[in-house]
Amino acid sequence: MSSILGDGDTAPGPRARVRRLPERARYDRATLDAILDEGFVCHLGFCSEGEPVVIPTAYARLGDAIYVHGAPANFALRRAVEGDSVCLTVTLVDGLVLARSAFHHSINYRSLVIFGVAHEVEDFEEKRLALMAFVDHVVPGRSRDTRPPSDSELRATRVVKVEIAEASAKVRDGGPKDEPEDLALTDIWAGELPFEVVPGAPVADVSAPVTAPVPPYVVAYRRPGAAARDR
Amino acid sequence: MSSILGDGDTAPGPRARVRRLPERARYDRATLDAILDEGFVCHLGFCSEGEPVVIPTAYARLGDAIYVHGAPANFALRRAVEGDSVCLTVTLVDGLVLARSAFHHSINYRSLVIFGVAHEVEDFEEKRLALMAFVDHVVPGRSRDTRPPSDSELRATRVVKVEIAEASAKVRDGGPKDEPEDLALTDIWAGELPFEVVPGAPVADVSAPVTAPVPPYVVAYRRPGAAARDR
Repeated sequence: MSSILGDGDTAPGPRARVRRLPERARYDRATLDAILDEGFVCHLGFCSEGEPVVIPTAYARLGDAIYVHGAPANFALRRAVEGDSVCLTVTLVDGLVLARSAFHHSINYRSLVIFGVAHEVEDFEEKRLALMAFVDHVVPGRSRDTRPPSDSELRATRVVKVEIAEASAKVRDGGPKDEPEDLALTDIWAGELPFEVVPGAPVADVSAPVTAPVPPYVVAYRRPGAAARDR
Repeated sequence: MSSILGDGDTAPGPRARVRRLPERARYDRATLDAILDEGFVCHLGFCSEGEPVVIPTAYARLGDAIYVHGAPANFALRRAVEGDSVCLTVTLVDGLVLARSAFHHSINYRSLVIFGVAHEVEDFEEKRLALMAFVDHVVPGRSRDTRPPSDSELRATRVVKVEIAEASAKVRDGGPKDEPEDLALTDIWAGELPFEVVPGAPVADVSAPVTAPVPPYVVAYRRPGAAARDR
């Protein structure tokens, strides 16, 4: 998988630089790419008449850019491409951290914050590639089994490309970090409760007959990072 | 559980009104409360010098307000309370929707978008209540087992209260909505792959002895909504 940030690691600019708890900051492209590949829903933020708007939306990547999409009338995407910049955040929640003190309770997570500029994609071929990339980013291997988008469906889709200006990741993992004097509180359970997103049993559509078997990419669905952690 | 929106359902203002796919919009307080109670990480958006910033952060509620917190030096929270308004979005991903056409692939989700104004909480008692609420929102029942926050810990925590001005939810559920002419494509598997966030085995902290047994709220950890769906 190519890097979102080109060949070198990124030197974050003033917006993306992690200020709080810099020991949790990651700027290496492997960490950034892994978060982007494992997630598939981002929170896209933009300023509309000076006020912030944050919407959840699926994303995909093609080369070094992130793509999001929606209907042509989609208010958020229209405003995003009108604006000067957007912020696109991907967060993976890995578990809960229970400390001996209320103060040191925490959450294990990996998050990626991208600052960039959003442009509407007008080119039909790029829109087609982006639509297939959305499908394959969420369900790897799916696009080849689907009825491809028609020209009218491509016209009915607003595709927005976010060119990355700055990016940084923040990672918290491991157990609680209690104060030394609290470590004697052995009667308080302390530790970590890991979380995993697990697919349930697939439910075939009931609106029309489905003769195809459940495809392997559905039966064995795992996000790329989760699959790597299994090995 | 009291409502985030007082006793009546909410009439959304111009920012929170769902414009696209209004059939997915929900303004009733039961839906909004359920999303807020099931989630525990929100994406907080604000405008900083005209540019959007979106950060993931834990939240809790006390009465009709949402609270977030961080270190006093936390850049995001400092900016959020300096700004006129914030947007706080909670998203729960419930599954993947595989349609016969690439175009109609979708994601089942419940999301809540809150527009509000952020104020720093200075009152020590309110800060203490908020800190316990964070702990109990993430792990219901946990706060009574922990060493409570000291005055210096309260001073070392910036607590921000978001007073809700407008809110709306958006919900997509069920199977794919293919075009009628695509329903004949019986050789394409179509349906839904539900997702669930599942806790793994608790990992006791290794930095000091833990003699306490794993508490029931860890052993049987479930988000409130998930527990309700199990019944």
